[in-house]
Amino acid sequence: MAFRYPSGKKYTAPRSLHNNRFTHKKFGNRGMSLEEDLNETNEYYRSTGRCVIHKKPTPIQVVHVDYPKRSAAKITEAYFKQASTTDYNGIYRGRYVDFEAKETRNKTSFPLQNIHPHQAEHMRDVVKHGGISFLIIRFSAVNETYLYDASYFHWWYFEQHKRKSIPKSDIETYGSFLMEGYTPRLDYLATIDKIYF
Amino acid sequence: MAFRYPSGKKYTAPRSLHNNRFTHKKFGNRGMSLEEDLNETNEYYRSTGRCVIHKKPTPIQVVHVDYPKRSAAKITEAYFKQASTTDYNGIYRGRYVDFEAKETRNKTSFPLQNIHPHQAEHMRDVVKHGGISFLIIRFSAVNETYLYDASYFHWWYFEQHKRKSIPKSDIETYGSFLMEGYTPRLDYLATIDKIYF
Repeated sequence: MAFRYPSGKKYTAPRSLHNNRFTHKKFGNRGMSLEEDLNETNEYYRSTGRCVIHKKPTPIQVVHVDYPKRSAAKITEAYFKQASTTDYNGIYRGRYVDFEAKETRNKTSFPLQNIHPHQAEHMRDVVKHGGISFLIIRFSAVNETYLYDASYFHWWYFEQHKRKSIPKSDIETYGSFLMEGYTPRLDYLATIDKIYF
Repeated sequence: MAFRYPSGKKYTAPRSLHNNRFTHKKFGNRGMSLEEDLNETNEYYRSTGRCVIHKKPTPIQVVHVDYPKRSAAKITEAYFKQASTTDYNGIYRGRYVDFEAKETRNKTSFPLQNIHPHQAEHMRDVVKHGGISFLIIRFSAVNETYLYDASYFHWWYFEQHKRKSIPKSDIETYGSFLMEGYTPRLDYLATIDKIYF
Protein backbone atom coordinates (compact mmCIF):
# COMPACT_ATOMS: atom_id res chain seq x y z
CA MET A 1 0.00 0.00 0.00
CA ALA A 2 1.16 3.51 -0.79
CA PHE A 3 0.39 5.09 2.57
CA ARG A 4 3.46 6.95 3.59
CA TYR A 5 4.19 10.18 5.35
CA PRO A 6 5.82 12.99 3.41
CA SER A 7 9.15 11.94 4.95
CA GLY A 8 8.75 8.55 3.24
CA LYS A 9 8.39 6.87 6.60
CA LYS A 10 5.56 4.41 6.92
CA TYR A 11 3.56 4.98 10.06
CA THR A 12 1.60 2.43 12.02
CA ALA A 13 -0.07 3.41 15.24
CA PRO A 14 1.85 2.03 18.23
CA ARG A 15 0.30 -1.10 19.70
CA SER A 16 0.10 0.58 23.10
CA LEU A 17 -2.33 3.14 21.72
CA HIS A 18 -4.60 0.46 20.36
CA ASN A 19 -4.55 -1.44 23.64
CA ASN A 20 -5.60 1.68 25.44
CA ARG A 21 -8.32 2.44 22.98
CA PHE A 22 -11.18 1.98 25.36
CA THR A 23 -9.72 3.39 28.54
CA HIS A 24 -11.40 6.69 27.71
CA LYS A 25 -14.70 5.10 28.61
CA LYS A 26 -13.93 5.54 32.26
CA PHE A 27 -14.49 9.25 31.69
CA GLY A 28 -17.80 8.48 30.03
CA ASN A 29 -19.28 10.61 27.30
CA ARG A 30 -19.56 14.03 28.81
CA GLY A 31 -21.58 15.35 25.93
CA MET A 32 -18.79 17.61 24.72
CA SER A 33 -18.44 18.27 21.04
CA LEU A 34 -15.13 17.74 19.31
CA GLU A 35 -14.91 21.50 18.81
CA GLU A 36 -15.34 22.13 22.54
CA ASP A 37 -12.74 19.48 23.36
CA LEU A 38 -10.26 21.04 20.94
CA ASN A 39 -10.91 24.60 22.09
CA GLU A 40 -10.26 23.62 25.71
CA THR A 41 -7.21 21.61 24.69
CA ASN A 42 -5.80 24.51 22.68
CA GLU A 43 -6.41 26.93 25.52
CA TYR A 44 -4.60 24.57 27.90
CA TYR A 45 -1.71 24.22 25.47
CA ARG A 46 -1.54 27.99 24.96
CA SER A 47 -1.65 28.82 28.67
CA THR A 48 1.12 26.30 29.42
CA GLY A 49 3.28 27.52 26.54
CA ARG A 50 3.15 24.25 24.57
CA CYS A 51 1.98 25.72 21.26
CA VAL A 52 -0.03 28.55 19.74
CA ILE A 53 -2.93 26.94 17.88
CA HIS A 54 -6.34 28.58 17.53
CA LYS A 55 -9.62 27.85 15.85
CA LYS A 56 -10.39 30.39 13.16
CA PRO A 57 -13.66 32.30 13.47
CA THR A 58 -16.59 31.05 11.39
CA PRO A 59 -16.67 33.00 8.11
CA ILE A 60 -19.75 35.21 7.97
CA GLN A 61 -20.90 37.57 5.23
CA VAL A 62 -22.24 40.71 6.92
CA VAL A 63 -24.98 42.44 4.91
CA HIS A 64 -26.49 44.95 7.29
CA VAL A 65 -25.34 46.56 10.54
CA ASP A 66 -27.28 48.89 12.82
CA TYR A 67 -25.37 51.44 14.88
CA PRO A 68 -27.64 52.23 17.82
CA LYS A 69 -26.71 55.20 20.00
CA ARG A 70 -24.77 54.31 23.15
CA SER A 71 -24.56 50.60 22.40
CA ALA A 72 -22.59 48.14 20.33
CA ALA A 73 -22.99 47.80 16.59
CA LYS A 74 -25.65 45.20 15.90
CA ILE A 75 -25.50 42.96 12.85
CA THR A 76 -29.08 42.46 11.65
CA GLU A 77 -28.50 40.56 8.41
CA ALA A 78 -25.68 38.15 7.73
CA TYR A 79 -25.10 34.70 6.24
CA PHE A 80 -22.72 31.83 6.86
CA LYS A 81 -20.05 31.46 4.18
CA GLN A 82 -18.19 28.35 3.14
CA ALA A 83 -14.70 28.15 4.63
CA SER A 84 -11.84 28.25 2.14
CA THR A 85 -9.27 26.92 4.60
CA THR A 86 -9.24 24.55 7.54
CA ASP A 87 -10.54 25.58 10.94
CA TYR A 88 -7.38 25.24 13.04
CA ASN A 89 -3.84 26.45 12.55
CA GLY A 90 -0.83 27.71 14.43
CA ILE A 91 2.72 26.88 15.45
CA TYR A 92 4.24 24.01 17.44
CA ARG A 93 7.96 23.37 17.96
CA GLY A 94 8.72 25.83 15.18
CA ARG A 95 6.52 24.03 12.66
CA TYR A 96 3.36 25.28 10.99
CA VAL A 97 0.39 23.10 11.98
CA ASP A 98 -2.93 23.13 10.09
CA PHE A 99 -5.89 20.80 10.53
CA GLU A 100 -9.59 20.28 10.17
CA ALA A 101 -11.75 18.57 12.80
CA LYS A 102 -14.91 16.68 11.91
CA GLU A 103 -17.42 14.49 13.70
CA THR A 104 -19.46 11.86 11.95
CA ARG A 105 -22.37 9.72 13.15
CA ASN A 106 -21.41 7.15 10.53
CA LYS A 107 -20.18 3.95 12.21
CA THR A 108 -18.15 2.35 9.44
CA SER A 109 -16.66 5.15 7.36
CA PHE A 110 -15.85 8.86 7.10
CA PRO A 111 -17.85 10.50 4.26
CA LEU A 112 -15.56 12.59 2.05
CA GLN A 113 -18.27 15.20 1.54
CA ASN A 114 -17.43 16.42 5.04
CA ILE A 115 -14.44 18.20 3.50
CA HIS A 116 -14.92 20.85 0.80
CA PRO A 117 -12.59 20.82 -2.22
CA HIS A 118 -11.08 24.17 -1.16
CA GLN A 119 -10.18 22.71 2.20
CA ALA A 120 -8.60 19.59 0.68
CA GLU A 121 -6.57 21.75 -1.71
CA HIS A 122 -5.55 24.01 1.14
CA MET A 123 -4.24 21.03 3.12
CA ARG A 124 -2.34 19.80 0.07
CA ASP A 125 -0.74 23.25 -0.34
CA VAL A 126 0.24 23.32 3.34
CA VAL A 127 2.07 19.99 2.98
CA LYS A 128 3.83 21.25 -0.17
CA HIS A 129 5.14 24.22 1.79
CA GLY A 130 6.50 22.03 4.57
CA GLY A 131 3.69 22.26 7.10
CA ILE A 132 2.09 19.58 9.24
CA SER A 133 -1.48 18.87 8.18
CA PHE A 134 -4.04 16.30 9.26
CA LEU A 135 -7.66 15.63 10.05
CA ILE A 136 -9.01 14.97 13.50
CA ILE A 137 -11.98 12.66 12.96
CA ARG A 138 -14.41 11.66 15.68
CA PHE A 139 -16.79 8.75 15.20
CA SER A 140 -19.32 10.06 17.65
CA ALA A 141 -21.54 6.94 17.74
CA VAL A 142 -18.66 5.04 19.36
CA ASN A 143 -16.84 8.12 20.73
CA GLU A 144 -13.50 7.31 19.08
CA THR A 145 -11.25 10.11 17.85
CA TYR A 146 -8.34 9.74 15.41
CA LEU A 147 -5.59 11.93 14.01
CA TYR A 148 -5.28 11.06 10.32
CA ASP A 149 -2.41 12.52 8.30
CA ALA A 150 -3.23 14.67 5.26
CA SER A 151 -1.26 12.42 2.89
CA TYR A 152 -3.58 9.47 3.60
CA PHE A 153 -6.62 11.66 3.31
CA HIS A 154 -5.41 13.09 -0.02
CA TRP A 155 -4.95 9.63 -1.45
CA TRP A 156 -8.64 8.93 -0.92
CA TYR A 157 -9.80 12.41 -1.81
CA PHE A 158 -7.84 13.04 -4.99
CA GLU A 159 -6.98 9.58 -6.30
CA GLN A 160 -10.00 7.42 -5.49
CA HIS A 161 -12.70 9.23 -7.42
CA LYS A 162 -15.22 6.44 -7.17
CA ARG A 163 -15.07 6.38 -3.38
CA LYS A 164 -17.38 8.56 -1.35
CA SER A 165 -15.90 7.73 2.02
CA ILE A 166 -12.83 6.45 3.86
CA PRO A 167 -13.39 3.10 5.60
CA LYS A 168 -13.10 3.39 9.36
CA SER A 169 -10.76 0.40 9.33
CA ASP A 170 -8.27 2.43 7.29
CA ILE A 171 -8.43 5.31 9.73
CA GLU A 172 -7.92 2.85 12.61
CA THR A 173 -4.88 1.33 10.89
CA TYR A 174 -3.13 4.41 9.50
CA GLY A 175 -4.45 7.05 11.85
CA SER A 176 -3.61 7.47 15.53
CA PHE A 177 -6.21 6.98 18.21
CA LEU A 178 -6.49 10.02 20.48
CA MET A 179 -7.33 9.13 24.03
CA GLU A 180 -9.60 11.43 25.98
CA GLY A 181 -8.43 12.83 29.29
CA TYR A 182 -9.11 15.76 31.58
CA THR A 183 -6.28 18.21 30.87
CA PRO A 184 -5.78 18.27 28.03
CA ARG A 185 -8.91 16.58 26.79
CA LEU A 186 -7.31 15.40 23.56
CA ASP A 187 -3.54 15.38 23.78
CA TYR A 188 -2.92 15.55 20.05
CA LEU A 189 0.51 17.18 20.47
CA ALA A 190 1.80 13.90 21.92
CA THR A 191 0.73 12.22 18.70
CA ILE A 192 2.31 14.97 16.59
CA ASP A 193 5.56 14.39 18.49
CA LYS A 194 5.49 10.72 17.51
CA ILE A 195 4.52 11.14 13.87
CA TYR A 196 6.12 14.35 12.65
CA PHE A 197 9.28 14.86 14.71
CA MET B 1 19.77 51.03 20.88
CA ALA B 2 18.32 47.66 21.78
CA PHE B 3 16.48 47.00 18.52
CA ARG B 4 17.51 43.56 17.42
CA TYR B 5 15.87 40.64 15.73
CA PRO B 6 15.40 37.40 17.67
CA SER B 7 18.52 36.08 15.95
CA GLY B 8 20.50 38.91 17.53
CA LYS B 9 21.09 40.47 14.14
CA LYS B 10 20.56 44.18 13.91
CA TYR B 11 18.47 45.07 10.90
CA THR B 12 18.52 48.30 8.98
CA ALA B 13 16.39 48.75 5.91
CA PRO B 14 18.49 48.58 2.74
CA ARG B 15 19.29 51.99 1.31
CA SER B 16 17.82 50.93 -2.02
CA LEU B 17 14.41 50.56 -0.44
CA HIS B 18 14.56 54.04 1.01
CA ASN B 19 15.65 55.51 -2.32
CA ASN B 20 12.70 53.91 -4.01
CA ARG B 21 10.32 55.07 -1.38
CA PHE B 22 8.30 57.37 -3.54
CA THR B 23 8.24 55.40 -6.76
CA HIS B 24 4.86 53.99 -5.74
CA LYS B 25 3.38 57.40 -6.46
CA LYS B 26 3.37 56.65 -10.14
CA PHE B 27 0.57 54.21 -9.42
CA GLY B 28 -1.31 56.91 -7.60
CA ASN B 29 -3.63 56.23 -4.71
CA ARG B 30 -6.18 53.90 -6.11
CA GLY B 31 -8.37 54.12 -3.05
CA MET B 32 -7.65 50.54 -1.98
CA SER B 33 -7.54 49.73 1.69
CA LEU B 34 -4.57 47.93 3.17
CA GLU B 35 -6.82 44.92 3.75
CA GLU B 36 -7.83 44.82 0.08
CA ASP B 37 -4.19 45.15 -1.00
CA LEU B 38 -3.16 42.29 1.28
CA ASN B 39 -6.05 40.05 0.27
CA GLU B 40 -5.19 40.45 -3.42
CA THR B 41 -1.50 39.95 -2.67
CA ASN B 42 -2.18 36.79 -0.68
CA GLU B 43 -4.45 35.43 -3.40
CA TYR B 44 -1.70 36.10 -5.97
CA TYR B 45 0.89 34.41 -3.75
CA ARG B 46 -1.38 31.43 -3.19
CA SER B 47 -2.30 30.97 -6.84
CA THR B 48 1.38 31.10 -7.84
CA GLY B 49 2.43 28.68 -5.10
CA ARG B 50 4.59 31.19 -3.22
CA CYS B 51 2.99 30.76 0.20
CA VAL B 52 -0.26 29.89 1.95
CA ILE B 53 -1.26 32.94 3.98
CA HIS B 54 -4.87 33.94 4.61
CA LYS B 55 -6.75 36.58 6.51
CA LYS B 56 -8.78 35.08 9.31
CA PRO B 57 -12.52 35.79 9.26
CA THR B 58 -13.76 38.60 11.51
CA PRO B 59 -14.88 37.09 14.83
CA ILE B 60 -18.63 37.47 15.23
CA GLN B 61 -20.88 36.37 18.09
CA VAL B 62 -24.03 34.94 16.56
CA VAL B 63 -27.10 35.39 18.79
CA HIS B 64 -30.05 34.55 16.57
CA VAL B 65 -30.45 32.67 13.30
CA ASP B 66 -33.60 32.26 11.20
CA TYR B 67 -34.00 29.15 9.08
CA PRO B 68 -36.40 30.12 6.30
CA LYS B 69 -37.80 27.32 4.13
CA ARG B 70 -35.96 26.80 0.85
CA SER B 71 -33.31 29.43 1.51
CA ALA B 72 -30.08 29.91 3.39
CA ALA B 73 -29.91 30.32 7.14
CA LYS B 74 -30.15 34.03 7.94
CA ILE B 75 -28.37 35.54 10.92
CA THR B 76 -30.64 38.24 12.34
CA GLU B 77 -28.75 39.20 15.48
CA ALA B 78 -24.99 39.14 15.92
CA TYR B 79 -22.18 41.31 17.30
CA PHE B 80 -18.57 41.93 16.44
CA LYS B 81 -16.15 40.37 18.92
CA GLN B 82 -12.63 41.47 19.77
CA ALA B 83 -9.98 39.38 18.04
CA SER B 84 -7.72 37.36 20.33
CA THR B 85 -5.08 36.76 17.67
CA THR B 86 -3.72 38.62 14.67
CA ASP B 87 -5.62 38.76 11.38
CA TYR B 88 -3.16 37.03 9.07
CA ASN B 89 -1.25 33.78 9.34
CA GLY B 90 0.07 30.90 7.29
CA ILE B 91 3.22 29.24 5.99
CA TYR B 92 6.09 30.48 3.82
CA ARG B 93 9.28 28.53 3.00
CA GLY B 94 8.44 26.11 5.79
CA ARG B 95 8.13 28.84 8.42
CA TYR B 96 5.06 29.93 10.34
CA VAL B 97 4.18 33.54 9.52
CA ASP B 98 1.80 35.63 11.62
CA PHE B 99 1.05 39.33 11.35
CA GLU B 100 -1.38 42.14 11.95
CA ALA B 101 -2.09 44.92 9.45
CA LYS B 102 -3.18 48.40 10.50
CA GLU B 103 -3.78 51.72 8.83
CA THR B 104 -3.49 55.01 10.67
CA ARG B 105 -4.38 58.55 9.60
CA ASN B 106 -1.80 59.80 12.06
CA LYS B 107 1.09 61.47 10.23
CA THR B 108 3.86 61.29 12.78
CA SER B 109 3.32 58.13 14.84
CA PHE B 110 1.54 54.80 15.14
CA PRO B 111 -0.83 54.80 18.17
CA LEU B 112 -0.29 51.67 20.26
CA GLN B 113 -4.00 51.44 21.03
CA ASN B 114 -4.41 50.05 17.52
CA ILE B 115 -3.21 46.72 18.90
CA HIS B 116 -5.11 44.95 21.68
CA PRO B 117 -3.12 43.36 24.52
CA HIS B 118 -4.24 39.87 23.44
CA GLN B 119 -2.84 40.48 19.99
CA ALA B 120 0.48 41.77 21.31
CA GLU B 121 0.79 38.75 23.62
CA HIS B 122 -0.13 36.44 20.77
CA MET B 123 2.65 37.89 18.62
CA ARG B 124 5.11 37.49 21.50
CA ASP B 125 4.10 33.83 21.88
CA VAL B 126 4.54 33.23 18.14
CA VAL B 127 8.11 34.55 18.28
CA LYS B 128 8.84 32.36 21.34
CA HIS B 129 7.75 29.31 19.36
CA GLY B 130 10.01 30.14 16.43
CA GLY B 131 7.56 31.88 14.12
CA ILE B 132 7.95 35.02 12.03
CA SER B 133 5.80 37.86 13.32
CA PHE B 134 5.47 41.51 12.36
CA LEU B 135 3.11 44.40 11.82
CA ILE B 136 2.27 45.88 8.45
CA ILE B 137 1.57 49.55 9.14
CA ARG B 138 0.18 51.98 6.58
CA PHE B 139 0.33 55.71 7.15
CA SER B 140 -2.61 56.44 4.90
CA ALA B 141 -2.27 60.23 4.88
CA VAL B 142 1.03 59.84 3.01
CA ASN B 143 0.31 56.36 1.60
CA GLU B 144 3.46 54.76 3.01
CA THR B 145 3.43 51.13 4.16
CA TYR B 146 6.03 49.44 6.35
CA LEU B 147 6.78 45.96 7.61
CA TYR B 148 7.86 46.32 11.25
CA ASP B 149 9.21 43.29 13.09
CA ALA B 150 7.42 42.12 16.25
CA SER B 151 10.54 42.47 18.40
CA TYR B 152 10.66 46.23 17.77
CA PHE B 153 6.95 46.55 18.37
CA HIS B 154 7.18 44.60 21.62
CA TRP B 155 9.89 46.88 22.91
CA TRP B 156 7.51 49.84 22.64
CA TYR B 157 4.43 47.93 23.70
CA PHE B 158 5.73 46.09 26.76
CA GLU B 159 8.73 48.13 27.90
CA GLN B 160 7.79 51.76 27.25
CA HIS B 161 4.72 52.09 29.41
CA LYS B 162 4.64 55.86 29.26
CA ARG B 163 4.50 55.89 25.47
CA LYS B 164 1.20 55.80 23.68
CA SER B 165 2.61 55.56 20.19
CA ILE B 166 5.63 54.57 18.11
CA PRO B 167 7.25 57.53 16.31
CA LYS B 168 7.01 57.21 12.54
CA SER B 169 10.73 57.95 12.34
CA ASP B 170 11.44 54.74 14.24
CA ILE B 171 9.26 52.72 11.89
CA GLU B 172 11.05 54.32 8.92
CA THR B 173 14.44 53.45 10.40
CA TYR B 174 13.87 49.94 11.72
CA GLY B 175 11.00 48.85 9.55
CA SER B 176 11.10 48.08 5.83
CA PHE B 177 9.26 50.23 3.35
CA LEU B 178 6.89 48.16 1.18
CA MET B 179 6.59 49.47 -2.35
CA GLU B 180 3.23 49.26 -4.06
CA GLY B 181 2.96 47.51 -7.39
CA TYR B 182 0.35 45.83 -9.54
CA THR B 183 0.96 42.11 -8.98
CA PRO B 184 1.51 41.63 -6.19
CA ARG B 185 0.34 44.92 -4.77
CA LEU B 186 2.54 44.70 -1.69
CA ASP B 187 5.39 42.26 -2.19
CA TYR B 188 6.01 41.63 1.49
CA LEU B 189 7.52 38.17 0.89
CA ALA B 190 10.52 39.86 -0.76
CA THR B 191 11.04 41.74 2.50
CA ILE B 192 10.58 38.56 4.57
CA ASP B 193 13.27 36.93 2.42
CA LYS B 194 15.70 39.73 3.30
CA ILE B 195 14.94 39.94 7.00
CA TYR B 196 14.16 36.43 8.20
CA PHE B 197 16.06 34.05 5.92
